[in-house]
Amino acid sequence: MIDFTISLSSDSHLPLYERLYRSLSGQIRSGQLQAGQKLPGKRSLAAALAVSVNTVDTAYQLLTAEGYLEVRPKSGFYVLPVPQALPKSGARQAPPPHPALPAGDQPPLARFDLSTGGVDTSLFPFRTWGRIQKELLYSSPQLLTRGPSQGDEELREEICEYLRAYRGVHCRPDQVVIGAGTEYLAGLLAPLLKGPAAVENPGYRRTRTILENNGLSCLPVDIDREGLSVEMLARSGAEVAYVTPSHQFPTGVTMPAGRRGELLRWAEEAPGRWIIEDDYDSEFRFDLRPLPSLQGMGGADGPVIYLTTFSKSLAPSIRIAAMVLPDSLLLPYRQRYAVYSCPVSRFEQQTLCQFIRRGHFSRHLARLRSQYKERMEALRQALEEAFGPDLLELEGTHTGLHLLVRLKRGPDEETLAKAARAGGIPLGRLSDYYMCRRENCPARTLVLGYAALPPDRIGELAGTLKEAWMPLLG
Amino acid sequence: MIDFTISLSSDSHLPLYERLYRSLSGQIRSGQLQAGQKLPGKRSLAAALAVSVNTVDTAYQLLTAEGYLEVRPKSGFYVLPVPQALPKSGARQAPPPHPALPAGDQPPLARFDLSTGGVDTSLFPFRTWGRIQKELLYSSPQLLTRGPSQGDEELREEICEYLRAYRGVHCRPDQVVIGAGTEYLAGLLAPLLKGPAAVENPGYRRTRTILENNGLSCLPVDIDREGLSVEMLARSGAEVAYVTPSHQFPTGVTMPAGRRGELLRWAEEAPGRWIIEDDYDSEFRFDLRPLPSLQGMGGADGPVIYLTTFSKSLAPSIRIAAMVLPDSLLLPYRQRYAVYSCPVSRFEQQTLCQFIRRGHFSRHLARLRSQYKERMEALRQALEEAFGPDLLELEGTHTGLHLLVRLKRGPDEETLAKAARAGGIPLGRLSDYYMCRRENCPARTLVLGYAALPPDRIGELAGTLKEAWMPLLG
Repeated sequence: MIDFTISLSSDSHLPLYERLYRSLSGQIRSGQLQAGQKLPGKRSLAAALAVSVNTVDTAYQLLTAEGYLEVRPKSGFYVLPVPQALPKSGARQAPPPHPALPAGDQPPLARFDLSTGGVDTSLFPFRTWGRIQKELLYSSPQLLTRGPSQGDEELREEICEYLRAYRGVHCRPDQVVIGAGTEYLAGLLAPLLKGPAAVENPGYRRTRTILENNGLSCLPVDIDREGLSVEMLARSGAEVAYVTPSHQFPTGVTMPAGRRGELLRWAEEAPGRWIIEDDYDSEFRFDLRPLPSLQGMGGADGPVIYLTTFSKSLAPSIRIAAMVLPDSLLLPYRQRYAVYSCPVSRFEQQTLCQFIRRGHFSRHLARLRSQYKERMEALRQALEEAFGPDLLELEGTHTGLHLLVRLKRGPDEETLAKAARAGGIPLGRLSDYYMCRRENCPARTLVLGYAALPPDRIGELAGTLKEAWMPLLG
Repeated sequence: MIDFTISLSSDSHLPLYERLYRSLSGQIRSGQLQAGQKLPGKRSLAAALAVSVNTVDTAYQLLTAEGYLEVRPKSGFYVLPVPQALPKSGARQAPPPHPALPAGDQPPLARFDLSTGGVDTSLFPFRTWGRIQKELLYSSPQLLTRGPSQGDEELREEICEYLRAYRGVHCRPDQVVIGAGTEYLAGLLAPLLKGPAAVENPGYRRTRTILENNGLSCLPVDIDREGLSVEMLARSGAEVAYVTPSHQFPTGVTMPAGRRGELLRWAEEAPGRWIIEDDYDSEFRFDLRPLPSLQGMGGADGPVIYLTTFSKSLAPSIRIAAMVLPDSLLLPYRQRYAVYSCPVSRFEQQTLCQFIRRGHFSRHLARLRSQYKERMEALRQALEEAFGPDLLELEGTHTGLHLLVRLKRGPDEETLAKAARAGGIPLGRLSDYYMCRRENCPARTLVLGYAALPPDRIGELAGTLKEAWMPLLG
């Protein structure tokens, strides 16, 4: 099944491990190597290719670090599902650069982008954004000079105003730090806190990696139907809790007010305890008024550090996020980072500032919310019609841009994911988001991000999924 | 001399230390508090203001962290010179927000921006940059989606090509990492290396802070007439050397080929030794062909990590820099950072990519080089005419965007800087760049960045400096 010959013999200026890495990652992306497939052992592959075991080991390590492979203890390396970015038209991807397998063996390529990081780029406010950008470029040469370390004052004012009005965040502009993504900001924050930090299980691995890379050790703490379990948190020995209370990632649970109060009380019980509130997609709440932020319940000098991003509301490639620091972290922050430059281009900062100030942002959000709500409703209806209430259950549909699809009976998650992928539908497995205690993962549950799913292809998606799964459901 | 009443009584929603910090930093920026002035002791100030000693201590610490104050051991807190950004027209700054002192007591405000971080923003290629930006915004919606972690492939190719052709760097695009400034990249790099790291003394404090913030301890190692002393480096116990061989910051020394060879041999003597080459303004060499990079002498898998920035050639606020990693650091880099997003907006990455690809960048550089060379020559001539060769010596004029002004006789550096500032000319003191062994600092030497100095005001600068200094030179 695995074909290395072509790639390993060409590109001879590259190190061998790099060529092997490229060959394998290409085959995983193209679907030649499928999710769940076991790779050959390092020794046998090294022998087969006449390279050193070290070369194979290096390539496998790289692929694991990048999320192509997973190590299963005492078993070996297995291919993980790779979310594939697709052209908006839904056309098939260009053929992979590697030689094709005989037609019968080749799984179909991904036909939908159902990743949780996608957004509908056609909703981006091209015209307004472009107009402001152009206006600033010609009128504001002072934006070429170095700006303030925490970000441009005007943008911090606008964000502060917005967070106060829409998310109930208590803040002043001097508490706001602008950064190139919440991950960047989490990296600055980590060294200011004393760990260990509890992270949600299941949860967002990337934040964990970043906190750990910046010296904050992490403990996965389980979530229940109300979000992070404060009881388990208290027992864990953690001094910091990283949470997504508006829309737990990936389960979609919203933390109710009672649990929020408990969490704040936990933080107030001992000095040096902090809560990091990642409010990553709270703009998209479809039924009720959103609960105000946890930070707002805790106050301007409470125990909550608030993080928000514009990746979901504007575009993943426009790297602007904001962090609101409690007063008592401002001094340590400034002592450590006074000399740092704000990583976001000032033109982009000021474009966003004017976009918010002139009222475009709230109109844009209203438009996104109605579009995404319609899409989610159509998807819900299509899936419910295809499977019926006895078979299918959806979760996390009140807010955010992804939902959980659960089958009430049928084969295991892995079999369902494999069948869907064979139909060209790449779905995430909920169990992949568990950092430990996978046995607690609800059965037959898959993660579906719908922000990048074109509305006119929802019927096709539901139909294809039905074709893929019905034979397995007896 | 110090006036706190107004600021401390207003803004009552801010913490006391913040109000005190703002009041003092405002007075330093406005020139009410002058460089070299000693601040009152913490206890006496706290008593005078009826606040706690802790409040004063916090404010002083913040001001020190941000470079407004310095601590002199066993003496107290002293005001440092603050480079002031000025409007291009050279008009005076708006009056400070604090109550003015009686006219006689008030020093003139800075009349020139002579900071080493400035560039001439009027040379920015507004039209071309704006055209490409607009074109991409409307034609390339795929740039809204998340891009590769190391930066967009096309930009890495262009940068690679440019560095190969102009700086003799040996690299492939997969070795290039795009980041939001060299400081950001240095922060990613530090945890991959095992210290301690030697940093140049005198040198660039900001890099030292960033390396240390990211877990790499630093040792200042002295430079001599050829740059970093390899003899002292070898004795220091350092395993990493951070150097600016094209144009040592701040002395302007170019490291000759012989010393480069020595430095490379030092790195090759033991495994795990690395050289970080910060090539921050090598584009601006005015007389000879620039020496190729140290990285090029070491090879694609040599011991040199190469850093370059577009802050000087485009604008300080456009945060794009690149790092070239040796092959043997690529794997550890990817293992640690595979999940990180590139912090630079993809539209900005692709604008730069097209700007290079279509030949605008090399034309733009040629234009900058000729403008800055002319400016530097005019400045040299004006200063030499004003003071004559018996009094004045200039250093570091072959390359880069700042130079050293040294008086051959006269009072000490501090007195000269104070007199210049009294005439509205803020000059850096060379001794401020010493992290230790200040006694080795050449006497009467000041640092002058001329990139933001308008050519038609060079005569005025030289004349004012002559007026300020001549009375002191007897």
